[in-house]
Amino acid sequence: MQALVLERKGELSLRDVDLPLAVGPGQVKIAVHTVGICGSDVHYFTHGSIGPYIVEKPMVLGHEATGTIVEVGPNVSTLKVGDRVCMEPGVPDMSSRASKLGLYNVDPSVTFWATPPVHGVLTPYVVHPAAFTYKLPANVSFAEGALVEPFAIGMQAATRARIAPGDVAAVIGAGTIGIMTALAAVAGGCSRVFISDFSKEKLAIAGGYDCIVPVNAGEESLADVVARETENWGADVVFEASGSPKAYGDLFRIVRPGGAVVLVGLPVEPVAFDVSSAISKEVRIETVFRYANIFDRALALIASGKVNLKPLITGTFPFSDSVVAFERAAAGRPTDVKLQIEVVSENA
Amino acid sequence: MQALVLERKGELSLRDVDLPLAVGPGQVKIAVHTVGICGSDVHYFTHGSIGPYIVEKPMVLGHEATGTIVEVGPNVSTLKVGDRVCMEPGVPDMSSRASKLGLYNVDPSVTFWATPPVHGVLTPYVVHPAAFTYKLPANVSFAEGALVEPFAIGMQAATRARIAPGDVAAVIGAGTIGIMTALAAVAGGCSRVFISDFSKEKLAIAGGYDCIVPVNAGEESLADVVARETENWGADVVFEASGSPKAYGDLFRIVRPGGAVVLVGLPVEPVAFDVSSAISKEVRIETVFRYANIFDRALALIASGKVNLKPLITGTFPFSDSVVAFERAAAGRPTDVKLQIEVVSENA
Amino acid sequence: MQALVLERKGELSLRDVDLPLAVGPGQVKIAVHTVGICGSDVHYFTHGSIGPYIVEKPMVLGHEATGTIVEVGPNVSTLKVGDRVCMEPGVPDMSSRASKLGLYNVDPSVTFWATPPVHGVLTPYVVHPAAFTYKLPANVSFAEGALVEPFAIGMQAATRARIAPGDVAAVIGAGTIGIMTALAAVAGGCSRVFISDFSKEKLAIAGGYDCIVPVNAGEESLADVVARETENWGADVVFEASGSPKAYGDLFRIVRPGGAVVLVGLPVEPVAFDVSSAISKEVRIETVFRYANIFDRALALIASGKVNLKPLITGTFPFSDSVVAFERAAAGRPTDVKLQIEVVSENA
Amino acid sequence: MQALVLERKGELSLRDVDLPLAVGPGQVKIAVHTVGICGSDVHYFTHGSIGPYIVEKPMVLGHEATGTIVEVGPNVSTLKVGDRVCMEPGVPDMSSRASKLGLYNVDPSVTFWATPPVHGVLTPYVVHPAAFTYKLPANVSFAEGALVEPFAIGMQAATRARIAPGDVAAVIGAGTIGIMTALAAVAGGCSRVFISDFSKEKLAIAGGYDCIVPVNAGEESLADVVARETENWGADVVFEASGSPKAYGDLFRIVRPGGAVVLVGLPVEPVAFDVSSAISKEVRIETVFRYANIFDRALALIASGKVNLKPLITGTFPFSDSVVAFERAAAGRPTDVKLQIEVVSENA
Repeated sequence: MQALVLERKGELSLRDVDLPLAVGPGQVKIAVHTVGICGSDVHYFTHGSIGPYIVEKPMVLGHEATGTIVEVGPNVSTLKVGDRVCMEPGVPDMSSRASKLGLYNVDPSVTFWATPPVHGVLTPYVVHPAAFTYKLPANVSFAEGALVEPFAIGMQAATRARIAPGDVAAVIGAGTIGIMTALAAVAGGCSRVFISDFSKEKLAIAGGYDCIVPVNAGEESLADVVARETENWGADVVFEASGSPKAYGDLFRIVRPGGAVVLVGLPVEPVAFDVSSAISKEVRIETVFRYANIFDRALALIASGKVNLKPLITGTFPFSDSVVAFERAAAGRPTDVKLQIEVVSENA
Repeated sequence: MQALVLERKGELSLRDVDLPLAVGPGQVKIAVHTVGICGSDVHYFTHGSIGPYIVEKPMVLGHEATGTIVEVGPNVSTLKVGDRVCMEPGVPDMSSRASKLGLYNVDPSVTFWATPPVHGVLTPYVVHPAAFTYKLPANVSFAEGALVEPFAIGMQAATRARIAPGDVAAVIGAGTIGIMTALAAVAGGCSRVFISDFSKEKLAIAGGYDCIVPVNAGEESLADVVARETENWGADVVFEASGSPKAYGDLFRIVRPGGAVVLVGLPVEPVAFDVSSAISKEVRIETVFRYANIFDRALALIASGKVNLKPLITGTFPFSDSVVAFERAAAGRPTDVKLQIEVVSENA
Repeated sequence: MQALVLERKGELSLRDVDLPLAVGPGQVKIAVHTVGICGSDVHYFTHGSIGPYIVEKPMVLGHEATGTIVEVGPNVSTLKVGDRVCMEPGVPDMSSRASKLGLYNVDPSVTFWATPPVHGVLTPYVVHPAAFTYKLPANVSFAEGALVEPFAIGMQAATRARIAPGDVAAVIGAGTIGIMTALAAVAGGCSRVFISDFSKEKLAIAGGYDCIVPVNAGEESLADVVARETENWGADVVFEASGSPKAYGDLFRIVRPGGAVVLVGLPVEPVAFDVSSAISKEVRIETVFRYANIFDRALALIASGKVNLKPLITGTFPFSDSVVAFERAAAGRPTDVKLQIEVVSENA
Repeated sequence: MQALVLERKGELSLRDVDLPLAVGPGQVKIAVHTVGICGSDVHYFTHGSIGPYIVEKPMVLGHEATGTIVEVGPNVSTLKVGDRVCMEPGVPDMSSRASKLGLYNVDPSVTFWATPPVHGVLTPYVVHPAAFTYKLPANVSFAEGALVEPFAIGMQAATRARIAPGDVAAVIGAGTIGIMTALAAVAGGCSRVFISDFSKEKLAIAGGYDCIVPVNAGEESLADVVARETENWGADVVFEASGSPKAYGDLFRIVRPGGAVVLVGLPVEPVAFDVSSAISKEVRIETVFRYANIFDRALALIASGKVNLKPLITGTFPFSDSVVAFERAAAGRPTDVKLQIEVVSENA
């Protein structure tokens, strides 16, 4: 079976690879349709590792996927052949201590697509647990469905924030995850979301949405804008989605007394953290690791029309052009948010 | 000073009345502009009492109000003469045990406009604490501002529900409060809100909004619709906004395992409550009494365009026609949601 | 293998029965040591059913159990032969929608020992998932371990109450579950717990514990006592553990404004519920169905000495006297809290 | 009126000072009985400042106080002359935005005893709002009552932690606040609390309490102990009460996946914060600023006997020896936890 394989740092090939396709109890087999390219896929390609995760042998990339069920294993009652689906890429041990608590995302034994040494899904077929495979509503396309995974991170951030209806939020960073977080914050109850970045292109995309207010970080600080717009009270929730250590300097100036800061972005090194400022406002700080119990709610928001992710798809490639797609993703054009690969054209 | 006075049950008059207008520390004096007619105002008019609250002497009606500040007392720093404002009608003792906890709405010593024996604000001027007077954003009209009070009840319901982004909700009853609750639930994070009623007219108004799905209770049960639309899982949150004892029979069929039921409507008598059904799904039940810390967030949602309350204003009357306005409200036309009185025309 | 079998309503026998003992992946085989007699066991014996659960064919009773692991199946890493354990009697589908949320207790597909048609564990051996089998700390006896199950219900109640440290609680009903709830409430953060009942014997047992204040319901009302002791503020949390419809008349008089009511007891019929009183104090109402993620925390409290359940064991019987034990339990002596059967003496 | 005055850094005198003693509406006048010496009092004495708070003119010290009401102002209904009371030292504007939310501790306009330029209460009489004056239960002494203030910080930490009954906690640092936090965590629902420090004396005091397990940080790391005692799962809650930047290196090794870290100690400089470790366990981080709505619950725990603070009083001085008391406090004996001054002996 063909697959997009990261042979080693910097070297991709679309080639045959042997992947297990037996369908066990509770599992389904899916003909993959669309797969989005994630920043982590690109990072493995360009750097060969992310933190402790090192690509030591060839690995199939891709974890933002939709497709169609072609086979159903024993004990599966919720899905059937022909169902259009999207897949949650992390598979935990559902009997673990974390999973029993509903925190299956932090189960230490979770396996996650395209995280070494686990293969991803840029390949025509994949076998997956039915419990982590979600039916696409009729009005949600495969392309939109493949955006659920990155959107789920924003949704997890918005969920952990415990937004009260009408809250004002601020998002630091208008990259893909920053925009996804802003969209989830608006859909999740905020009245306005201020989002800051240095990229005019990203801000233009973010600012195209209702209730999202772009702030050019090169011109004025997010802290100043939020102070001005909230009569010096501050934002109820601040999402850190840049991963930049510099962002930490202003976090507790932006948030209101008793407000929440949600850490989504992943700084490479420890950051300088002003505990005293956090304490003087008695801030609650939440962190976000992937997502749990989000995919169904994310799909519900897309299907109801409340969230429109389509403008974020800035390029679609056939499976045969996968390497080209990754090279463009690696180039990091400021106007690109999400590139996707259609595997199904090869399938047909 | 002229005022709309409920002389006794069934008898209204627009006449001069003596009301205190001295502006103390922390207070502001407001020229009243628009006042909405609430179901409770009408009920005092038609029945002379609501539960333990009995109209025993003439009382000025009205508590859904906006206006313009004309005088500012000592120690007021947040407001100034000329500010357009809306007012929260309940004034608690801010040093009470409940208020210290942030629950000033359940402070037993709260006084509330147009709740006997406290006068309301259908009169040209009123003095009010600055702490419960909120500046209208520039793009929010006096008429919209006067809708904040009833909307705040829906907002309180949506807040206490602790909606997670993308939740599915159901609302029983499409009266003014039911619609307000549905709007708050959508703005507050729900993907879809199913709302049931027997009135086609009310459902048509509710169904005119995005993400709100009307259910004609005469044709199919809300429980059946929710079951069908959620693959027999149930709604994450069910809002009871009808006050009808019959609604209680189905509450725990509509809600999902581990979901929440929010009681907004006020049945006159104790209802038959199926504890065993509630327990078998381990349902959380929240109740809603007025609102606390809601007005600013409600205004933010209106100002950002996320919530549009204008279609709910189905009639506007000059102050001089106040009695006519109340008679129409008492008639209860099915197409009426909210009638308002403009006091300011008399002021000018 | 011998077992205590409920042949039909009113008829018990200790006889051989064929039970599956194959140990599959993720499972362990346990030599049962001690099994407590629960009110539900007794109710099946005396009435043949509980609500929708009807004993239609012979069923082994017992679900409050401890024992020793004698065999370990594949993929079990947390337990080994010889471990002393207690077992959580409900086995959910861990891949279900409810279980993924951490709410495995309300998974509709859960099977539960000694709930028709599922057999219980009054028998020498049982096979159970390792994920629902908990190691007993060295200083916790088999007898104490067999009290974890009923204590877990009290713990679930105390957990859902969201007690703040120092809260005052009230418990209606000093039966086994009422006392367990009171103990969990004290251990879980309450400063004082008022518990009411008509039985002097039960109150004497409850009142033997620190911080638990017995209230003789025949002499004064719990509402009056709580009002007096809290300067008319009310209890932060009220636990309804009697299942009596009469208890519902006072619930909202006992609780403070903004407090919580937790429903643990199971009334047979719908009760008269005063919505208006609940709303006027904006009470939160929680319900309790069994427990989830409680056994480890319950064991930790027993092991640390914070909770002493030993005084609640009021009788211990050898396995051969199981029928006698049930007859005594059915007699309902006021001085009995928990009777236990030692299966292991037959085992040895 | 005599008072203990910090004239400037390093210079204390017990001398006459002019303090306002008029009793306004909602206020009471209290004859001060016992005042504890806080680390902040000592720090102002030895350093002349704490962060932005600088002693620029003579200031009366002391904010941990009890006494007897000698005069009651207008509109006070909850207290009367002769009541024995303890006082919450921070007085917020109860109409502020923060106070309305129940977060009066983070109201920017709060004034706090013995925080420059506000005078403290080491003086015979003080006037205070009744709303922040709490009656001592009959079995709580003045000395114990004067411990409520530092205990309240531990209680605030335990409250914000949202302890579930039976949780395991770890406390870094066994100074006064560390011990207070450990005691609040046990009283607030934890089964065991591991507390680490380098001081054997402090650990001996902490370890004298039930359910508190001392860990000598010089011999083994708290992270290792917690891992061993929790089967490598981690503590449900970790309280940082040392203020040491070094503590931050281990925080996320000690806590379990999905657990909480509560920051109580105040590092002088920003600390190195390992965001990536926090995120990979999706840790919630709470911060603690003083306390709100805690005094009544703290008193309830002391009165019920659940918390015994008496062993923490390691020295009591007459008012005339106030300077001596401060010198001993400044010396920082390892066996000292709390020194107190009895003002009343001078009063009598």
